[in-house]
Amino acid sequence: MEHVTVTFLRDDNIDAPILIEGLPGIGHVGKLVADHLIYELGGEKIGEISSLHFPPQVVVDEQGVTHLVKNEIYRCEKDGKAALFLVGDFQSTSAEGHYTLTERYLDIAEDLGVGRIYALGGYGVGHLVESPRVLSAVNMEHLRPEVEAAGGSFENAGNSGMIVGASGLLLGLGEARGIEGICLMGETSGYIVDPKSADSLLTVLSHLTGIEVDHTSLQQRAENMEQIIAKIQEAEEGKGREELSYIG
Amino acid sequence: MEHVTVTFLRDDNIDAPILIEGLPGIGHVGKLVADHLIYELGGEKIGEISSLHFPPQVVVDEQGVTHLVKNEIYRCEKDGKAALFLVGDFQSTSAEGHYTLTERYLDIAEDLGVGRIYALGGYGVGHLVESPRVLSAVNMEHLRPEVEAAGGSFENAGNSGMIVGASGLLLGLGEARGIEGICLMGETSGYIVDPKSADSLLTVLSHLTGIEVDHTSLQQRAENMEQIIAKIQEAEEGKGREELSYIG
Amino acid sequence: MEHVTVTFLRDDNIDAPILIEGLPGIGHVGKLVADHLIYELGGEKIGEISSLHFPPQVVVDEQGVTHLVKNEIYRCEKDGKAALFLVGDFQSTSAEGHYTLTERYLDIAEDLGVGRIYALGGYGVGHLVESPRVLSAVNMEHLRPEVEAAGGSFENAGNSGMIVGASGLLLGLGEARGIEGICLMGETSGYIVDPKSADSLLTVLSHLTGIEVDHTSLQQRAENMEQIIAKIQEAEEGKGREELSYIG
Amino acid sequence: MEHVTVTFLRDDNIDAPILIEGLPGIGHVGKLVADHLIYELGGEKIGEISSLHFPPQVVVDEQGVTHLVKNEIYRCEKDGKAALFLVGDFQSTSAEGHYTLTERYLDIAEDLGVGRIYALGGYGVGHLVESPRVLSAVNMEHLRPEVEAAGGSFENAGNSGMIVGASGLLLGLGEARGIEGICLMGETSGYIVDPKSADSLLTVLSHLTGIEVDHTSLQQRAENMEQIIAKIQEAEEGKGREELSYIG
Repeated sequence: MEHVTVTFLRDDNIDAPILIEGLPGIGHVGKLVADHLIYELGGEKIGEISSLHFPPQVVVDEQGVTHLVKNEIYRCEKDGKAALFLVGDFQSTSAEGHYTLTERYLDIAEDLGVGRIYALGGYGVGHLVESPRVLSAVNMEHLRPEVEAAGGSFENAGNSGMIVGASGLLLGLGEARGIEGICLMGETSGYIVDPKSADSLLTVLSHLTGIEVDHTSLQQRAENMEQIIAKIQEAEEGKGREELSYIG
Repeated sequence: MEHVTVTFLRDDNIDAPILIEGLPGIGHVGKLVADHLIYELGGEKIGEISSLHFPPQVVVDEQGVTHLVKNEIYRCEKDGKAALFLVGDFQSTSAEGHYTLTERYLDIAEDLGVGRIYALGGYGVGHLVESPRVLSAVNMEHLRPEVEAAGGSFENAGNSGMIVGASGLLLGLGEARGIEGICLMGETSGYIVDPKSADSLLTVLSHLTGIEVDHTSLQQRAENMEQIIAKIQEAEEGKGREELSYIG
Repeated sequence: MEHVTVTFLRDDNIDAPILIEGLPGIGHVGKLVADHLIYELGGEKIGEISSLHFPPQVVVDEQGVTHLVKNEIYRCEKDGKAALFLVGDFQSTSAEGHYTLTERYLDIAEDLGVGRIYALGGYGVGHLVESPRVLSAVNMEHLRPEVEAAGGSFENAGNSGMIVGASGLLLGLGEARGIEGICLMGETSGYIVDPKSADSLLTVLSHLTGIEVDHTSLQQRAENMEQIIAKIQEAEEGKGREELSYIG
Repeated sequence: MEHVTVTFLRDDNIDAPILIEGLPGIGHVGKLVADHLIYELGGEKIGEISSLHFPPQVVVDEQGVTHLVKNEIYRCEKDGKAALFLVGDFQSTSAEGHYTLTERYLDIAEDLGVGRIYALGGYGVGHLVESPRVLSAVNMEHLRPEVEAAGGSFENAGNSGMIVGASGLLLGLGEARGIEGICLMGETSGYIVDPKSADSLLTVLSHLTGIEVDHTSLQQRAENMEQIIAKIQEAEEGKGREELSYIG
């Protein structure tokens, strides 16, 4: 078996200048934004990536049909603006796998004409956040003013921070290939799947890409989550927030 | 050393249209069914698989003779219906090994003309089960009606379930090769080696394959296990079932 | 780097019909016997094996000089009887490494004309043993009578036992190459480095190989250890043997 | 992706007779010394090493710019004496990676004419040390008198010590290539980043290399650390030193 297998479902007219990565991570913030964009833009799946660096298992769907663990590439287009999306339910199970997979993601990006990558994620702070900031990092210094103008914050810089996994390596390994990389991380508690943080992140991302979509369904999920949290807080009154279990 | 070594003990007349996988797993349900079928059908061992992805050890038999950890391929034939079996006492020790081994299992299946794989296992529910269902998954949607007609249930579908290890990957990687895959999982507590669940699974499998065998020895083992459990429950009265230790 | 590097210090007259493996294991029983034999027979180091499957470290000797972690091959000859020894302070750190290293050990054995391998080890029983038996396993059934005649016991057979690591794989992988394999395991508590068990093992091994050496230094170490244990038992009176810490 | 990628920033006039390794380790003693020397000597970065054996992440700097995890090679020259430095914030995440990376470090050393390697580190003793010794090891016995004359101690020899990671393997694997290796380990508690130990180590290293630099900034850091420790000891009076947490 090849370590990574990439299969394209079609090969014509699949170029795009940007790639948006929304693999699973803290608070599923990046995944929520990417899935929301693909849904609202009516994205088309153009490729699949399987690998022995993913967990050795299949997912059973609602029909009882199995699907090999994989990542997927979607392509969306709106008002002449095209974007690729890298999404899925899994990341690599090993350090070596993260490097190997990310190099293949970058091969695909280069082949399809991508000049800039947006890596989306969450930034865990350990407590509920009223107004989540969108903390940011870039792989080339000249990108910073553009991100700040779009509402991204760099207040996290200087904390000796690390960005782990595909998001980090897309920026780190992408730089050597001359691909611009912007990482947007919605502030989030780390305890819950966080659509409110995703909503903030989406606003900044839309400013950067010029691709606007309706936020209603994301905001509705955020309101539902707020209500769930309020109920739990009532019930847990006196126990402290740190006992909140992970809700999704 | 090659990562996987396959040795055939003979090479004539070893084709078969189906492969039945019964490697170790929850409640040893799949293994019990496969071993029972091989015994009742007088199966012949036609191949052995060793690999550096198996644990680095040998098994000492009753004569004090060592045997390298391996998987084995048997072939059975009854009334003109032939089947291959993949059995053994071990699965891979690593994620990468699961992928690498399963690709080799599929190479063998393709070489021997296999068009359909039955992956057998247990479905752990955490409590003793009076009438174990045979929960199912398929790797192509058109297989579902046939499985339901044979008594397989799809009530587990929609639970975001995963099938881990060789059983899952045989379906997931087999699909890409056009090999039909049906996973049958006997409901079981997860605490005991479970011949009752194996008996239920065997019934569904026989309906699907048209290969019938005597169930007596499996049912006898199931009765013995019931008596053991009854005694333990008496002794443990008041402690709760969850303290039942694993019995085999 | 090659995964395994074998360096011979000389290449003439280094054949031998048997290889005795004494790598570290339970109670260091195998290592004690092999080191004792090499010392008493005035063995000569003829080869070294280094590998990235060993721990990534060097050992600092009494002169402050570092030595890469390695295994060593010695050759001994007495009364026209020659034997190779495989010794060292480390085994592989991974399952794959055990397989890869053992295949290389067997390559060396084949190149040097080895027809039989003695794998030495301990058999941990969890309590102090007054008269340690030498439990045994063979990789070909015809070897058993010879081992029994030499004083080896097969009372452990039938316990579904496993032999893990180099000792097990030398037998398991050696069988496929037609190399006879005999594993001798001195019964030992598992709590202490056990020269008494090594003394018993050496007796059986000498009967098998026809190579006799003086046991005095091994017996002296065994007596010293007995005295240490007696003192600890006095001191620990009332606490139970299971609190004995590992002594070497 | 290659397992290790080495990139040189220039290729003329980069030879040097010695390489000084200061990768992270106990008390960051080696790293403190190497970083101090590079700073005081105005070293120039001449190469970078990235690898899938490093953690899969990027570091975010004070400007919010990401940097792939890497090791770096600097070159310094003073009074006609040139030295290369191997520094960075990470070592390999796996045993195999340590071997693979060290072989590449040695390839670089050979290519650039290095005849001797100084591997710098800490020697953890578990308690605060008033006058830290510089414990030593060499990969060729003839190096010992020179190290002792420079103030290095070999009192640690005979303790069955190990040197783990890049420092150990540079000596162990370097010996086979005929490259002299000297490991200097500043005695340190293991609880704190220890500039006092680094100051002692620097003195011995300067005697050996003949490259002298100002110690002021290192001594200033040592004094600051002394004051921090004094305050903590006051606060912790009565609790015991072993509760000191790691300070850096």
